[in-house]
Amino acid sequence: MTVKLYFAPGACSFVPHALLEMAEVPFEPALVKLHKGENLTAEYKAVNPRGQVPVLVDGNDTITQILAIVHHLDSRFPEQHFLPTDAMDRTRVLETLAWMNNTVHPTFTHVFMPHKFATTPEGQADIKANNAKLYAEMLAEIDAIALGAAELGEPFMAGQHFGPVDAYSLVLLRWGGFAGIDPTSYRSLWAHVQRIAELPGVARAIERERLQLNLYKAA
Amino acid sequence: MTVKLYFAPGACSFVPHALLEMAEVPFEPALVKLHKGENLTAEYKAVNPRGQVPVLVDGNDTITQILAIVHHLDSRFPEQHFLPTDAMDRTRVLETLAWMNNTVHPTFTHVFMPHKFATTPEGQADIKANNAKLYAEMLAEIDAIALGAAELGEPFMAGQHFGPVDAYSLVLLRWGGFAGIDPTSYRSLWAHVQRIAELPGVARAIERERLQLNLYKAA
Ligand SMILES: N[C@@H](CCC(=O)N[C@@H](CS)C(=O)NCC(=O)O)C(=O)O
Ligand SMILES: N[C@@H](CCC(=O)N[C@@H](CS)C(=O)NCC(=O)O)C(=O)O
Repeated sequence: MTVKLYFAPGACSFVPHALLEMAEVPFEPALVKLHKGENLTAEYKAVNPRGQVPVLVDGNDTITQILAIVHHLDSRFPEQHFLPTDAMDRTRVLETLAWMNNTVHPTFTHVFMPHKFATTPEGQADIKANNAKLYAEMLAEIDAIALGAAELGEPFMAGQHFGPVDAYSLVLLRWGGFAGIDPTSYRSLWAHVQRIAELPGVARAIERERLQLNLYKAA
Repeated sequence: MTVKLYFAPGACSFVPHALLEMAEVPFEPALVKLHKGENLTAEYKAVNPRGQVPVLVDGNDTITQILAIVHHLDSRFPEQHFLPTDAMDRTRVLETLAWMNNTVHPTFTHVFMPHKFATTPEGQADIKANNAKLYAEMLAEIDAIALGAAELGEPFMAGQHFGPVDAYSLVLLRWGGFAGIDPTSYRSLWAHVQRIAELPGVARAIERERLQLNLYKAA
């Protein structure tokens, strides 16, 4: 069985990327250059008709959507405890993960790619400014989750095991830099992200993607 | 243990509403009038600080996010098979469900509540028009899923059991009417939605919400 991950540096595909590295699964990393439109080629659309990363290919199965990929990796590598086994604990992780995926992530997409949502320059500028503000508020919510975990003395956002919520929070906080938000202003979250960045598997994913965690430039 | 569902007629909360009715679980339906801003009152924000429906209260647990609520209902009522037990089949359902929840649903939100994304009338009109077009394309994707199930002779979108993808597709197709889209133009999906609307549990949820499935008015 060969495993292949289509990813783009700095994109949300970092979530499965970090999970695969943490599980020490041998896999083929396939870099897709979004800024060169490689995700929109006929070749890539044959892999994912929606033209997005991440895509995980596991043997004959091609899986899209972070939530589905995370579920798959959890069931393939149960010893990693990427998702809690207790039903209610799992419900709680899915609650945070779904919110990051359906609300926080798309809010950033409005800042980064306003042309996906409106056609006029005015409409795009409006969307960008409005959503950067919302995004800062959402990062504050994630900061509160990190603070809560720290107060309980838990090493990870969902407890004792590294998982998708940790990886996603690194991505989302880093994106803040593009939205003019200083990541260090979210103290608990910034501390958490710096700490998980040093886990060997996460560090390997960061190195392959050549990520700098703090992209903020004071205006 | 008492179960309570905060819902709004015609909103995405129909997904857990239909699941609860199909499971024949006694529950307290708590109607939240979104158009009157009841979701933004201090009282409601004490239930869900994000001011949204659905919220499921099960005993001492308050759960938000459709994906988390669906996971919870599946683990509470396993005999309903709301989610497949086979890991890969479950991955596939989560893939479709996550996409509906993070892409199709938010695209409609842009059409229905453009003021959430932009502040100027021009920006809002732009967003609305652009996203109505995208929404029609996404409904065509769901129509293709319904066609695929029909061709395999499967009664539901994920196979032999009614589940969240069926309920969500009813909601999303119905919303099309608000976006100026004729639901009957998606033949397989419209047939599917009409069929599941007749299941006794789904019919009870429809009746409580007083839903009319076809809201389209020719221009
Ligand atoms: N709902 C998808 C979101 C995937 C997504 O937004 N991918 C972005 C990168 S973060 C992408 O491929 N963007 C390229 C594009 O949409 O053109 C998931 O959960 O996997
Ligand atoms: N991501 C949430 C979305 C919930 C949502 O969008 N709810 C809408 C109704 S469909 C709502 O409460 N809107 C009121 C508002 O946002 O003001 C989920 O999956 O449950």
